[in-house]
Amino acid sequence: MITTSAPGKVILFGEHAVVYGEPALVCAIDKRVYIHASKVPSGLKIISGKSKDFRYVKKAVELVFEHAGKKCGLDIKIDSELPPASGLGSSAAVSVATILAVSELLGAKLSKAEIAKLGHKAELEVQGAASPTDTAISTFGGVLFIQPKKKYQRINAALPLVVGYTGVERSTKILVQNVRSLKEKFPEIVNPIIRDIGKITRKAKRRLENNEDVGELMDINHGLLCALGVSTEKLNELVYAARKAGAKGAKLTGAGGGGCMIACVPKNAEKVARAIEACGCTALRAPISKEGARVEKHAI
Amino acid sequence: MITTSAPGKVILFGEHAVVYGEPALVCAIDKRVYIHASKVPSGLKIISGKSKDFRYVKKAVELVFEHAGKKCGLDIKIDSELPPASGLGSSAAVSVATILAVSELLGAKLSKAEIAKLGHKAELEVQGAASPTDTAISTFGGVLFIQPKKKYQRINAALPLVVGYTGVERSTKILVQNVRSLKEKFPEIVNPIIRDIGKITRKAKRRLENNEDVGELMDINHGLLCALGVSTEKLNELVYAARKAGAKGAKLTGAGGGGCMIACVPKNAEKVARAIEACGCTALRAPISKEGARVEKHAI
Repeated sequence: MITTSAPGKVILFGEHAVVYGEPALVCAIDKRVYIHASKVPSGLKIISGKSKDFRYVKKAVELVFEHAGKKCGLDIKIDSELPPASGLGSSAAVSVATILAVSELLGAKLSKAEIAKLGHKAELEVQGAASPTDTAISTFGGVLFIQPKKKYQRINAALPLVVGYTGVERSTKILVQNVRSLKEKFPEIVNPIIRDIGKITRKAKRRLENNEDVGELMDINHGLLCALGVSTEKLNELVYAARKAGAKGAKLTGAGGGGCMIACVPKNAEKVARAIEACGCTALRAPISKEGARVEKHAI
Repeated sequence: MITTSAPGKVILFGEHAVVYGEPALVCAIDKRVYIHASKVPSGLKIISGKSKDFRYVKKAVELVFEHAGKKCGLDIKIDSELPPASGLGSSAAVSVATILAVSELLGAKLSKAEIAKLGHKAELEVQGAASPTDTAISTFGGVLFIQPKKKYQRINAALPLVVGYTGVERSTKILVQNVRSLKEKFPEIVNPIIRDIGKITRKAKRRLENNEDVGELMDINHGLLCALGVSTEKLNELVYAARKAGAKGAKLTGAGGGGCMIACVPKNAEKVARAIEACGCTALRAPISKEGARVEKHAI
């Protein structure tokens, strides 16, 4: 019997612009998916409150069996602190934690790089398309500076965050398409916005490396995402509620159109969380998680 | 006894960016200040619900007396459809309508250019500083394309607007200072936003001249104003309520920090106005006014 976990993620800066070659800053957050797995004589039994998780677990198990060249019967139970389809990387965390659990049970020691690679493969095969970012961040933890066609760069940064979840599921695909349409209609206006988000992301990277405040940059980035048309009334409500309650900065995170926002809260984290809850939404006190996927407990 | 009127104004595009050399589009709206003036044997009696108006009326009367080289006793009554300190150019309309009324009563025919010039002088002397834009637009009506250090350009455009007034008075001076501080702190990020607002304004001018929709440009401009930090929760609430009720586009207008927003409503004007009122705010159904200052009634 083994228990593993892997963290969720938020995009700190650069969503949407990353589609057009700009960098993004992504970090693991201290909210996790836990996998409890036991060897059994045969079969695969999966217990989860969320139907979405099954396909990722099943695919992750298959990929580990294939990679290890051996298999076994498994009972797997999923406990998640992450709401699904919220942009917090729930499916990546499920995939990664499952891969870690099953490989440990089989005695097939995988490197972190191998776990991340199999995790990405699981997402790819289930979804048809997937960025390798979510599974990489869930595996390695910490903060990654991502530039298209370049290697990830790890940033050493701590940032106290509160995540506000609107409860509204959204389609990343549709939101990315909407931005593309706007960009095609008004290229001379939308391209500078995208490049400016890239500048904000690079500036935020330097400031995080120097342990400087990035709150105002979050606020500006949020406004530019509004200009791209991906914010919603509810996201704005949470962003303003967080700022009013003492957050240093706040922005939507991920695709927009629902999903989540983040607030930077060196102080007043509790007050900000309560302000988000007072809007009828879910608040996760979720600082950056330096640790990625890990074994929580392994009883033989 | 004479009755004159002069319209208020809204900034359609370009607020804040105009401070840094970018163009702005400003239009007169069909909400007016009415001045009822009568010659009396002596003195100056001013009746108005709003204490702010007195100084403008007094100064306007003085300037006309000086310009005409003659004077008379006056009873002046002000009726206004414009909330004061809302960014709708109430003080400019008061000044302009008073100048027109008093000059007519004295038989001193002033050209529109002379009225606009005296109106600007009245605002300057009362406030210490004033842009000539508000008094020009109130005098001439219609839509003006304004470029710093260049002549106004008149645009022939019709645009059905609903104005939403938050009821929150704000200080233009402080908001302009806040943008300047942000610009000085992050010039490489804020300067492109200001230039982009300029591009939107020029694009909107061309589209208005061709009778094309400018709703999406309003939405983008609003997002960029959010990025500059001048929007508020209430302004955003009104902007989203208007869009939801069928507006083609919506944005804050003027300095932000309170004041007003505008919604472009080729259809659904009533529905949009009611949505704004449902947020506890005042809605003005205020299409562009092609006419500027005018004599409403002149009984000898």
